[in-house]
Amino acid sequence: MTTTTTQQELFVLSGLITWEQAIKRATGFFDGLSDEEMGREIVPGKNRIIYLLGHLTAVHDRMLPLLGLGERFYPHLDELFITSPDKTRDNLPPASQLREYWTTINLRLTNHFRSWTPEEWLQKHTAVSDEDFAKEPHRNRFSLVINRAGHVQYHLGQLVWFKK
Amino acid sequence: MTTTTTQQELFVLSGLITWEQAIKRATGFFDGLSDEEMGREIVPGKNRIIYLLGHLTAVHDRMLPLLGLGERFYPHLDELFITSPDKTRDNLPPASQLREYWTTINLRLTNHFRSWTPEEWLQKHTAVSDEDFAKEPHRNRFSLVINRAGHVQYHLGQLVWFKK
Repeated sequence: MTTTTTQQELFVLSGLITWEQAIKRATGFFDGLSDEEMGREIVPGKNRIIYLLGHLTAVHDRMLPLLGLGERFYPHLDELFITSPDKTRDNLPPASQLREYWTTINLRLTNHFRSWTPEEWLQKHTAVSDEDFAKEPHRNRFSLVINRAGHVQYHLGQLVWFKK
Repeated sequence: MTTTTTQQELFVLSGLITWEQAIKRATGFFDGLSDEEMGREIVPGKNRIIYLLGHLTAVHDRMLPLLGLGERFYPHLDELFITSPDKTRDNLPPASQLREYWTTINLRLTNHFRSWTPEEWLQKHTAVSDEDFAKEPHRNRFSLVINRAGHVQYHLGQLVWFKK
C-alpha cells in the first residue's frame, strides 16, 4: 500500500466484497431450498420465502436507475413485492423464474461495480439532487451499495429461521 | 470533491455512517422495550431479546482487541452470549446492565472510529497475520467495521418480528 490510488482501491474493494458476500450468502440460502419449500412461511405467520426472494430482487432491480445504470429489467415486481405485503396477491411468478431474475440482476449489477473506478463509486445516486449532494457528498453509489448489502443481511437474519 | 484526500475521506464517511446507522437502529429498538419485554422470545421458540442484546454487546466488545484498541471491557459476556445458546444459562446480567454495556462499548468504538485517518482505517485487524494481510489487504479495519454493521442488521431483521 504505497500510493494513494491503491488506498482508494482498497476502500472500493471492501465495499465490493461486502456486496458480493451478502449476495453469495443469500443465493446459497435460496439454492438450498426446493421450489415447494420456497412457498412456505419462514416462521408461522411471517413472510413466505418466495416473497423475500421477490422483494430482494425488486429492490436490486431498482438499483439500476438509482445508480444511473439504465432502465430496469423487472419493474412489474414492485407491486407484487414492494408495495403489497405478502399473501395479498395470487399471481406471483413461479420460484424458478424469480431465481433467474435474482441471478440476472445481481450479475448485471456486480459487473458494473467491478468496472467502476473509485471516482465512479463516489458519484451521486440519482435519488439525490445536485444541491443536496453538494451538502451531503456521502450520498453516493458506494454508500448505496453498502446499504443494500445491509438490507440483504437484514432479511437473511429472518430467512435463516426457516426449518425444513 | 477536488482532492484525493477528500475522496478517501468520503469512503471513510460511508463506512462510519453505515456503522452509526446500524447502532442507532438497534439502540432505538432496545430502548422501545421494557426490561420485562426484553426477557421474552422474539417469536415462539427463538432467541429472547435480551440474549441478542448480550450477543451484540459481546461481539462489539471483542472488536476492541480485534481493532488494536486495547483490552476488552466485558470478556465475561462471551460464555453467556457467544459460546452458549440462549436459555442454557440462568445467570444473565439484568437487562438494565446490558443496556449500559451496549451504550458504553458502542460509544467507545465510535469515538475511536471518528478519530481515525483513512490510513488508520486501512490498517489490518489483529486476527490477520502480516503474511495474509500482504496477500489480502482488504482484511482491514474498514472491512471489519462494515462487516459488524451488517451483523447488527442481520439480527435487527429478526428483532423487528417481536410483537408486544
